[in-house]
Amino acid sequence: MGEAFLAVDWGTTNRRTYLIENGVVVRTERDDLGVTSVRDFEDAVAGIRGRFGDLPMLLAGMVGSNIGWRVAPYVAAPAGIDELAANLLEVDARTAIVPGVSTRAGGRADVMRGEEVQLLGAVAAGLVPADALLAQPGTHCKWALMADGRIADFTTAMTGELFALLRTHGLLAAQLHGEVGANAAFREGVEEGRRRDLAASLFGIRAAKMLGVRDDADAAAFASGLLIGSDVAARLAGADHDEVFILANPELGALYATAIEANGRTAHHVDSHAAFVAGILALGAARQ
Amino acid sequence: MGEAFLAVDWGTTNRRTYLIENGVVVRTERDDLGVTSVRDFEDAVAGIRGRFGDLPMLLAGMVGSNIGWRVAPYVAAPAGIDELAANLLEVDARTAIVPGVSTRAGGRADVMRGEEVQLLGAVAAGLVPADALLAQPGTHCKWALMADGRIADFTTAMTGELFALLRTHGLLAAQLHGEVGANAAFREGVEEGRRRDLAASLFGIRAAKMLGVRDDADAAAFASGLLIGSDVAARLAGADHDEVFILANPELGALYATAIEANGRTAHHVDSHAAFVAGILALGAARQ
Repeated sequence: MGEAFLAVDWGTTNRRTYLIENGVVVRTERDDLGVTSVRDFEDAVAGIRGRFGDLPMLLAGMVGSNIGWRVAPYVAAPAGIDELAANLLEVDARTAIVPGVSTRAGGRADVMRGEEVQLLGAVAAGLVPADALLAQPGTHCKWALMADGRIADFTTAMTGELFALLRTHGLLAAQLHGEVGANAAFREGVEEGRRRDLAASLFGIRAAKMLGVRDDADAAAFASGLLIGSDVAARLAGADHDEVFILANPELGALYATAIEANGRTAHHVDSHAAFVAGILALGAARQ
Repeated sequence: MGEAFLAVDWGTTNRRTYLIENGVVVRTERDDLGVTSVRDFEDAVAGIRGRFGDLPMLLAGMVGSNIGWRVAPYVAAPAGIDELAANLLEVDARTAIVPGVSTRAGGRADVMRGEEVQLLGAVAAGLVPADALLAQPGTHCKWALMADGRIADFTTAMTGELFALLRTHGLLAAQLHGEVGANAAFREGVEEGRRRDLAASLFGIRAAKMLGVRDDADAAAFASGLLIGSDVAARLAGADHDEVFILANPELGALYATAIEANGRTAHHVDSHAAFVAGILALGAARQ
């Protein structure tokens, strides 16, 4: 894509723009103009070019969904840089949207849009092996099995969303205002999560209060441990990998690492921004 | 308790009053004056006696909790009619509240309040064997293991509450407005629930929409099957019983029966009102 281009990681609620020159990020900008806040995408894209320069542009994330600018149809897994580059949605000669990835392996439908750039970039940059298990914790945690440097299969768990729902609505909300960290209560929750019996384990938080078994100051950490722990336990139950590579902010990454290690695996932290940049560079190179 | 008495099944949002003469219900009344709608319980109880007669009274349910009239402390499982009768909270010489039951068996705290009368009554009336697995589906589904006619252990799953939360808030809410019945989509959900991987299976509902795999008209039935199915699968995983006795309204009972039978067990329906009356009669008799 020439010597300089713009990459935009454009999600539902946020976007991050990178100005890349000769393979190096020279300027970046983050704002809350996610796709749900944008009405006129041509105008928004012109605005980015106005601030960063009139350059070619690669867009990734929800901008390519049916709530974004144009729909870039999913590429079926297994999918690598070449498959994504061959299926870029060309908005015009200088503007393209990266497609998401879908899977129906294992009998359950799943989709991703935006995460694929980080995943493939982590391999491209040598941050993770070409055959590895990667986790991208968040509202919807993605777990991807990489094989030969491609996304072979993946699973999304709405772990973060469930936690947010339970903290805001329903029976447990009033109990879940405490701080969350990788403490003893969190580890107890992770252990309980190994039962993979969420609906019953959650009621146990209420019962523990009624019986005076756990202080409510610890209930949020326990609930977080329970939800993350059952996500981790479910994903590791069928996994051959002894190591998990985590792409997340440090706080959430630390919680997942604690749960992964409590389940007998080794957790490594990977710089998700570096992975995104490497992925978008690889896509840009493959496109030429 | 003499020849005539009043029994009140007094829950959080509803209450049901029974006038019982010589062991037979001669009149019943149901209203929405659950404990959260009542400020003055002495006045409310006087109102019941004004309508039904100035009789002795046994109260069960949340009326004995810290959001009710007086706290009737939990009796630890195993608990039968005799243990509950010995621990009635006597408000006055003619008015008593049935205590709830607690357990910490299996390492998880659990509590019930109100359900114990139905459970013990089902055995007392001969509606279920003295050694049996009983299910009381609802917002918080109770599963009780009866042994020698007593509540030996139990588990509560907040299955109904999770379904209500997901229908009202968050990513899936817009998809979950369809009807729920024991149809093919419900059975698919039950099958998916056997994975006991709720956070991932729930995201699959979203992905199925994005990939056009399932019509949204079927999404609510699938989600209900998934939640009930994972509840049933978790409970039956460690259960020796080939039969499950369900105390519920016909609609919810049919859904649980479908999930139980899909998991290779036999489901029987039990009249929960008859069970309550038998339980309260047995408590009244044991009290004398």
